[in-house]
Amino acid sequence: MSKPSLARGTRDFGPETMVKRNFIFDQIKKVYQKFGFQPLETPAIENLSVLMGKYGEEGDQLLFKILNSGDFAKDLTSDDLSAGSKSMLRKVSEKGLKYDLTVPFARYVVMNRHALAMPFKRYQIQPVWRADRPQKGRYREFYQCDADVVGTDSLLCEAEIVAMLHEIFENLGLKEFTIKINNRKILSGITETIGAKGKEVELCVAIDKLDKIGKEKVEEELLQRGFTAENIKELQPLFSLSVSQTELFENLKTWLKDSEIGILGVNELEAIWQLVDSLGVENPKIAFDPSLARGLSYYTGAIFEVKALGVSIGSISGGGRYDNLTGTFGMPGLSGVGISLGVDRIFDVMEELNIFPTEISGSRTKVMVTNFGPDTLAKSLEILTLLRKENINAEIYPEDSKIKKQFEYADKKQIPFVIILGSEEIEKEIYNLKDMKTGEQVSINKTQLLEKLHV
Amino acid sequence: MSKPSLARGTRDFGPETMVKRNFIFDQIKKVYQKFGFQPLETPAIENLSVLMGKYGEEGDQLLFKILNSGDFAKDLTSDDLSAGSKSMLRKVSEKGLKYDLTVPFARYVVMNRHALAMPFKRYQIQPVWRADRPQKGRYREFYQCDADVVGTDSLLCEAEIVAMLHEIFENLGLKEFTIKINNRKILSGITETIGAKGKEVELCVAIDKLDKIGKEKVEEELLQRGFTAENIKELQPLFSLSVSQTELFENLKTWLKDSEIGILGVNELEAIWQLVDSLGVENPKIAFDPSLARGLSYYTGAIFEVKALGVSIGSISGGGRYDNLTGTFGMPGLSGVGISLGVDRIFDVMEELNIFPTEISGSRTKVMVTNFGPDTLAKSLEILTLLRKENINAEIYPEDSKIKKQFEYADKKQIPFVIILGSEEIEKEIYNLKDMKTGEQVSINKTQLLEKLHV
Repeated sequence: MSKPSLARGTRDFGPETMVKRNFIFDQIKKVYQKFGFQPLETPAIENLSVLMGKYGEEGDQLLFKILNSGDFAKDLTSDDLSAGSKSMLRKVSEKGLKYDLTVPFARYVVMNRHALAMPFKRYQIQPVWRADRPQKGRYREFYQCDADVVGTDSLLCEAEIVAMLHEIFENLGLKEFTIKINNRKILSGITETIGAKGKEVELCVAIDKLDKIGKEKVEEELLQRGFTAENIKELQPLFSLSVSQTELFENLKTWLKDSEIGILGVNELEAIWQLVDSLGVENPKIAFDPSLARGLSYYTGAIFEVKALGVSIGSISGGGRYDNLTGTFGMPGLSGVGISLGVDRIFDVMEELNIFPTEISGSRTKVMVTNFGPDTLAKSLEILTLLRKENINAEIYPEDSKIKKQFEYADKKQIPFVIILGSEEIEKEIYNLKDMKTGEQVSINKTQLLEKLHV
Repeated sequence: MSKPSLARGTRDFGPETMVKRNFIFDQIKKVYQKFGFQPLETPAIENLSVLMGKYGEEGDQLLFKILNSGDFAKDLTSDDLSAGSKSMLRKVSEKGLKYDLTVPFARYVVMNRHALAMPFKRYQIQPVWRADRPQKGRYREFYQCDADVVGTDSLLCEAEIVAMLHEIFENLGLKEFTIKINNRKILSGITETIGAKGKEVELCVAIDKLDKIGKEKVEEELLQRGFTAENIKELQPLFSLSVSQTELFENLKTWLKDSEIGILGVNELEAIWQLVDSLGVENPKIAFDPSLARGLSYYTGAIFEVKALGVSIGSISGGGRYDNLTGTFGMPGLSGVGISLGVDRIFDVMEELNIFPTEISGSRTKVMVTNFGPDTLAKSLEILTLLRKENINAEIYPEDSKIKKQFEYADKKQIPFVIILGSEEIEKEIYNLKDMKTGEQVSINKTQLLEKLHV
């Protein structure tokens, strides 16, 4: 008889949390589908040959590996033992848990390339696993929530992602946010223009702190990171970029005029801004942010990051365009663009801002019918059945317990209404409906009851 | 560059399959919630101390074990190596993948007993993992779909499960099914009555074949399984049990009159039949089946199994009442009753009967707008945005490709309508709407277009 516990870094999601999480998932799914993305699910278990080497050396270590079934140690020798874990691994484990949704998606695309409608738009909402050290807000098992289009380099896809993000966050009730946008090509253009080609990452890390530490300190940091005084002099236009859209693009074009890739990046940016407008997004919450990096090595075009305003929590979504998702599986040159929503973060933001709807329709029980034993049971079941026929979530307290206990149950389960149906009510053909929040109780007939509960 | 593959016994669920699977899940969830069950999710990863010893020795072997992170072999000695896998296991693995939803549910209940509204009604739809030998229809990763009530022994719960099953299968369009019901107590009563106490399993296995091999062969088999001629003589009333309800219960009561537990079982059965009627289930598809066993050791009261008729596939759902779900975690005496739906089986049955709705509302893209490049793009995006504002799933072909290619895409993705919007249409302020199934094409204005797509 052991005292049970959760595995470290994992969580149960009880009813209250699940109802809220499902609200988030449902809103996201609805919008993804509205924009033509279709659902995909891949297994939790993947062959290690699919996963290993895709996330760098650290990623390889953070993969959860599954012990081979049966007599896993049968081929192990004392040589293996002295060679240590790393060398032993390939003899005892062939499978692992997926680390993100992107690599399995790439595998799926390659394996099904001939059957898929290309460009292929899919969304995927599933858990992933990472053997990270658990800490506040970081778990070993958590959901990712991705949408990607692959097989086209049309900038319409970027614009649609921006429009989609607006609709998702609006539907969630999250009104204050910024979608920061950068472009890998602009970053390349800047480093090219200032004479520091290839130093995109270092540049980002430093200028990311501009808001916090100011221009002078950023310049100090750039020096420390190996930029020359000349580089920094050439970087000056960055600090006086206009915030107004049209001027911003003109500023950038003037500054980066000698960098082909830089100009290409600005043109892409401008095109996205225009397409977002054509998609009817009113007052788009988009902002060019030259310090946005997000794993540069991976992205080749637009880069997105969404930040919720007025809360301490960081980014709630991120993504971008990539050129070589499937190259590692022998299918090079497939361009795509994707976005990932951080459901745990979105949940925390919505809790902090207290913007979850008080009643999440369809999820919770709306009304409980009392149970006073054999004499009244048939009538209680009759109204219960009628309520369910009307698509109202309803339950009966399963036992003939004291009314106090039945109320406590309804209260604890946050059921907003209780129908009290004793022999007196049955005789008078009325229903006593108690509002569990206000405590108010009304005696009404069947028609009135259904009307009241349908609101 | 490796040729990627799926891990054995696992599956990808592509868009077409997912839309259908989600239809099943959504219908089930809706009904579960209507009956007051609330969602729960537990992690995929559990401590092995929670999982081991709960599913018998075979189950222990079929658990997927996760290799400890980091230097998993650091404590291994050559003694461990010679002792073999079994003894090595506890040094290299502390966690595993969940094997079913029941044990993690029990863990959750025990860990949260003071916070839960009791009786606790939860549903849970999640994948589970078993290192079984993969074969047709048997996978290593598959979904379970459970609903349980714990903390009450009220027979109302059994009746509600029966009503719930009726509503679920009706909503799925699966009209022909039978819910077979037995009761562990009746089985005990029969063995007690015929003088073969404790031989419930052997009895079930033999009489289960009655339909197929006939009474004589069943009796032969009973002899082989250690029943005496006297036992078999006493068993005769079983073969002449009435199929009409009221007579059935009377028959059983007469036959089992000297077995206290048997009579208790018949009374429970009769109560369930009555409560199902009180719950307004019309023409209930329930049948007493004395040969129904379903892991007898676990169940203590009612036992359910649902069989779809007219198909070769076996049971699509099963469950029953248990008395000691949480005993193994130090919380004895918690009675409960639950049901589990086999989603893979239900999917196969629905495919075989061809009863999936042709249009699963809200899931697929309803209309695609053509893309003829810069001159017409703004107008295409305008109608696209309008359609989405009207909550119609809509997408634009992302590239300015030949119309044939755009149609092929819509066709492959089973998008039922395409709006063809060239410069001519824009000038005339009309929309060419093509029905992709019939090939029919109509030129209509905006109002007519919205009307047609809203149907």
